[in-house]
Amino acid sequence: MQGARPRPRLAFGTDIVPGDRVLPEEVGVALTFNGTTQAVMMATPDHLADFAYGFALTEGLARPEEIDSVDVVETARGLDVQLWVSAAAEARLTERRRVMAGPVGCGLCGIDSLEQAMRDMAPVAPGGFRLVPAQVQDAIDALPRQQALHDVTRSAHCAAFWDGARMIAAREDVGRHNALDKLAGALVRASTHPTAAGAVVLTSRVSIDLVQKVAAIGAPMIIAVSSPTATAVDLAEKLGITLIAQARPDRFELFTHSDRIQTREPHVR
Amino acid sequence: MQGARPRPRLAFGTDIVPGDRVLPEEVGVALTFNGTTQAVMMATPDHLADFAYGFALTEGLARPEEIDSVDVVETARGLDVQLWVSAAAEARLTERRRVMAGPVGCGLCGIDSLEQAMRDMAPVAPGGFRLVPAQVQDAIDALPRQQALHDVTRSAHCAAFWDGARMIAAREDVGRHNALDKLAGALVRASTHPTAAGAVVLTSRVSIDLVQKVAAIGAPMIIAVSSPTATAVDLAEKLGITLIAQARPDRFELFTHSDRIQTREPHVR
Repeated sequence: MQGARPRPRLAFGTDIVPGDRVLPEEVGVALTFNGTTQAVMMATPDHLADFAYGFALTEGLARPEEIDSVDVVETARGLDVQLWVSAAAEARLTERRRVMAGPVGCGLCGIDSLEQAMRDMAPVAPGGFRLVPAQVQDAIDALPRQQALHDVTRSAHCAAFWDGARMIAAREDVGRHNALDKLAGALVRASTHPTAAGAVVLTSRVSIDLVQKVAAIGAPMIIAVSSPTATAVDLAEKLGITLIAQARPDRFELFTHSDRIQTREPHVR
Repeated sequence: MQGARPRPRLAFGTDIVPGDRVLPEEVGVALTFNGTTQAVMMATPDHLADFAYGFALTEGLARPEEIDSVDVVETARGLDVQLWVSAAAEARLTERRRVMAGPVGCGLCGIDSLEQAMRDMAPVAPGGFRLVPAQVQDAIDALPRQQALHDVTRSAHCAAFWDGARMIAAREDVGRHNALDKLAGALVRASTHPTAAGAVVLTSRVSIDLVQKVAAIGAPMIIAVSSPTATAVDLAEKLGITLIAQARPDRFELFTHSDRIQTREPHVR
């Protein structure tokens, strides 16, 4: 497995026992669009074409149909993931760079920078996707079978897409944002299932940037094992996303847009 | 508590029970140096002066003695944390911006950007700090008493500094990097304990950026509840940092620079 590597260690307990532990791999990954870098991130070095398509989509940089090709180039310091995008997408990126500037040393004052960072997004369409509570719990039941990297390292995040009966796709990474971007890329590249007809299942905490990415994917529901932030709940409410967290095989908590969870008797909120 | 806020939710289990869950707060925080933004991050809005001092230190932007003052200004989109730094620090930042450019839309190719992102750092000094195994376990025993935000939300990270007998300082945040930066700021602002004489205790996974930040603080040891990445182990080895992970009250795993853990009988590695 490319995403994991054993490292020697001493285990201290009742005794001191030498041995190895398999750990997730983490490498520098640059994402360049027609030769210009948009971002550098630390990521697990697998499914990088999915990562490229997903990051471009969820950050609003290029739509899947605007990406002509993706090359992964190894360098001494990490991997350069080179996206080649249409002239229209490149023109938009150039204009965006000119207007926006980046968050690091951008020359803007804090107020302007916060305006740029807190991007406004369109709510997801209401759509017809609904689950009964048992289908939420089934998603959590099904999740461990998607976590090959976690099986060997016990420390990788997973993002998966659940249509109510089966996992359409799943991706893992040391970074929770990366796992979600890889999932987004896998979904749009396969293009076999509409992203409006399913729930994004996350092992991780839910911060507002993950809610933004799910909205960019167009998925109407998040089912998370861990907790959201208070702000992420506010944003999910605003963007029309059903947010479920603290999900376990036998229970879960529903924070927003409860109409997508169908119960025999009507429930409040 | 400023860092947490209750949100209504429906708890689904045997029954459907309405109620509240207290969640960690997450707001946009801009860090501006003499009027120019260096970074925008999502963070828990407390201990922001510590955050400013710590981020400036661990990212190599300004040393504590170069910071004249820190103001926190509320804006509609988040908080603008305004650092006012010496002319020497400002000149260095301006030069760095000119040479380096930021990671987003910086106009560099991927190889140059990876060079910039994978910063080279000086190893920490060997120093005389040592612990016996029981003192490592004591740190993990003592950690929960430092986690007020986690007590109410069950979902906040903590970074603390352990001198072998007591916690010198501890800070919490929804973001693991932020918690560590706040700790760094708290340590250098109090300046009552040398950062070379203690261990950074982390609830979180250990990625290479956290190892880089600990090296910038000058601390010789990391004790983490969760796992490191394989690359983080490599970097801790290179930077002279003792990396302990999977730490529990009754056991832990020692990955690098084992000479700082003293046992009655010599141990290998």
